[in-house]
Amino acid sequence: MREIGIGVLGFGTVGAGVVEGLFKNGDLIAGRSGIFPVVKKIADLDVQSDRGISLPADILTTDAAAVIADEEVDIVVELVGGTAIAKDLTELALRLGKPVVTANKALLADHGAELYALADERDTGIYYEAAVGGGIPVLRAQREGLIGNQIESIFGILNGTCNYILTRMEREGLPFDDVLADAQALGYAETPPDLDIDGIDTAHKAVLLASMAYGAAVPMEACPTSGIRGLSKVDIANADELGYRIKLLAIIKRHAGSVELSVEAALVPKAAMIGSVNDSFNAVFMKGDIVDDTMYYGRGAGRLPTGSAVISDIMEAAADVLHEAGSPIGITMMREHASLTYLSADEVQKRCYLRLTLADEPGAMAQVMNVLGEHSINVASVIQKELHPNGAVPVVVLTEQAREADFCGAIETISSLAICKAEPIRMRLEDFEDESR
Amino acid sequence: MREIGIGVLGFGTVGAGVVEGLFKNGDLIAGRSGIFPVVKKIADLDVQSDRGISLPADILTTDAAAVIADEEVDIVVELVGGTAIAKDLTELALRLGKPVVTANKALLADHGAELYALADERDTGIYYEAAVGGGIPVLRAQREGLIGNQIESIFGILNGTCNYILTRMEREGLPFDDVLADAQALGYAETPPDLDIDGIDTAHKAVLLASMAYGAAVPMEACPTSGIRGLSKVDIANADELGYRIKLLAIIKRHAGSVELSVEAALVPKAAMIGSVNDSFNAVFMKGDIVDDTMYYGRGAGRLPTGSAVISDIMEAAADVLHEAGSPIGITMMREHASLTYLSADEVQKRCYLRLTLADEPGAMAQVMNVLGEHSINVASVIQKELHPNGAVPVVVLTEQAREADFCGAIETISSLAICKAEPIRMRLEDFEDESR
Repeated sequence: MREIGIGVLGFGTVGAGVVEGLFKNGDLIAGRSGIFPVVKKIADLDVQSDRGISLPADILTTDAAAVIADEEVDIVVELVGGTAIAKDLTELALRLGKPVVTANKALLADHGAELYALADERDTGIYYEAAVGGGIPVLRAQREGLIGNQIESIFGILNGTCNYILTRMEREGLPFDDVLADAQALGYAETPPDLDIDGIDTAHKAVLLASMAYGAAVPMEACPTSGIRGLSKVDIANADELGYRIKLLAIIKRHAGSVELSVEAALVPKAAMIGSVNDSFNAVFMKGDIVDDTMYYGRGAGRLPTGSAVISDIMEAAADVLHEAGSPIGITMMREHASLTYLSADEVQKRCYLRLTLADEPGAMAQVMNVLGEHSINVASVIQKELHPNGAVPVVVLTEQAREADFCGAIETISSLAICKAEPIRMRLEDFEDESR
Repeated sequence: MREIGIGVLGFGTVGAGVVEGLFKNGDLIAGRSGIFPVVKKIADLDVQSDRGISLPADILTTDAAAVIADEEVDIVVELVGGTAIAKDLTELALRLGKPVVTANKALLADHGAELYALADERDTGIYYEAAVGGGIPVLRAQREGLIGNQIESIFGILNGTCNYILTRMEREGLPFDDVLADAQALGYAETPPDLDIDGIDTAHKAVLLASMAYGAAVPMEACPTSGIRGLSKVDIANADELGYRIKLLAIIKRHAGSVELSVEAALVPKAAMIGSVNDSFNAVFMKGDIVDDTMYYGRGAGRLPTGSAVISDIMEAAADVLHEAGSPIGITMMREHASLTYLSADEVQKRCYLRLTLADEPGAMAQVMNVLGEHSINVASVIQKELHPNGAVPVVVLTEQAREADFCGAIETISSLAICKAEPIRMRLEDFEDESR
């Protein structure tokens, strides 16, 4: 039995989950792999708080650099978070030729290219299964399981906080602000919640999935991002009535000569499998040119699920260290292309949900339909709802596919009509025709 | 760029898919992995038929042994099928120290232990991602992604033919025999269909999943197996009315000191994610003690999807060959324990669906309820349907959890009652409370 020494940087939620998992199942892991993972050192600024884990003496220290440099530490696990200190510590480990396992999506989305280059230069690796989809082994599936495939599309529900909020809004008919406040009180959402609810966390993960799919370090600027802040319960109820749910999606599609990338709230069919991904669960739908549709589902966050992914990376890094495999396959997949072309947001073809508030007068609907027609937008269905108390008529339109630029033009014109009584609401609709067969 | 030589044995559906995939995406795979997979030789008894792939001259031969022995062949891909010649050829390759990639679940379920031992003795590996779940990288997820987890349970929909038949029976209200005949005419089911519809193919796959989960070569005898042959459309309609669908499930559960294993048709909730796995799709739900619920979904069969999984194994074997990694982790996971204890079928706790046909007379239902009570079976719900033309009353009962031995005893007693007018129908019910949250 060979041993491998682990140094953990950051003993917060995930750090404690990793250590707990390694202590609990260390023998099992060693039996399976022939390698015993031994936690040699843990660094955290807080060496006092009880994490409910009994540790050997002298294992906990405030000196992260000493943990990295420790001769007994073969693999460095970076769970500090953020992009400042975490970057310094990651670089320190890589410069010593030690592989780094991390769950830090922000760090990799912002500084991935230079860190991968440094790892490669020092003939070692960065392993980041836990950075996307929490406990779901989705990067491993993509990188190894689908290695023979050109990736045609990826749809991800990648933020558990947003999915939890959306699920409760739908089930309980509550407004966004109430559910968010409750989620914060329960510890399911952070304060401030911006990274989650504005889609930035999802965009970090989308960028990592796209980078791996297309072999280039995709910058955050390539991913137009919006979130679910202020989403109205009216739209959730309308979607429900029409057979849809609203999900915050990462959308990645391969077109001839370009890649489409965005993070946005979208209507998805309740009857499709993606409509069954509720509460804080995550899922990634990935279509390859050879394998066709695949899907990966599980807990996208949490102490132990994220710990499970970190442990899988530790054992992969351990095998690579022992085989002297050097800079592993996951990294070379990022460097396959020099550059990618991104589809301009204006050129994206999509279906949309529109909610309009029109004056209750003859010809109002006709004016709207004329504007849509002038912008080459075909209407799939229209629902005119009962009168509002104030005399305005709510109208819901589901469109066929059209260009984003045409949607923007049409909405601008509709907004300017005298019969338009409130700012139009628009959301993407993805019908998952293939996936829901 | 390093090259790796591939020898393919069997140029049927999957063999052609593998070769087509490697030809189509060889450059992409090489860009990602740094290894170019080159098909050096293909063996098949039929060297005449057009598979729609243009091959280099002299690549196709009838001499499988010569392909294995060929110096340029580093990796042998066994796609011959069956357990006779396939076993001989696999042994021949392993004895030469060449890794074998295979999609042959029957071969591994029946002869896995001796083949793994031989591979280990010759310091090489057997790779079989394509043997379970077709294109879904589920074994890789289990073996690597969940390496830190004790596997608590696995539920698999693993046979596309059965799932296709069940889906069509439900959607079109057709009887089993008609859908089977149609599936055979369309090439979705084989003639004879026994391996699929009697659950044997699913059991082969269940045994491989359980073997990997618990580190022992699980024998087929440990898996009580039944299929969907003769399933009545009445039961499908009843299930539908109650909010369930019938699926052929592989069920693996870990109990204190034993493993529960079976293949059987079962009712699953339509609203749970497993209820959305329709048509010929496969899915595996796997719960780990650390990661909690995960799920993997995709095409369980077909030329290209299965080819995708074979290609992923080829590239893993290639990396192992080039790193001289020897006998890889997947195999050691099979040898972790010397033996397993299997839960006796009589002791399995489950919920059941019962369909009884009772005489239309006072007290008939009371007699049934008494029998169930005497066998410690609690009733969750009862539906008494309209009278049949012949005066018999159809009654549907959903039970709470009870022991299989008690169900057997109760059914035997009920069958012997004068008021019991037809053989009772019984099926397992899995409510997936955890997975459907």
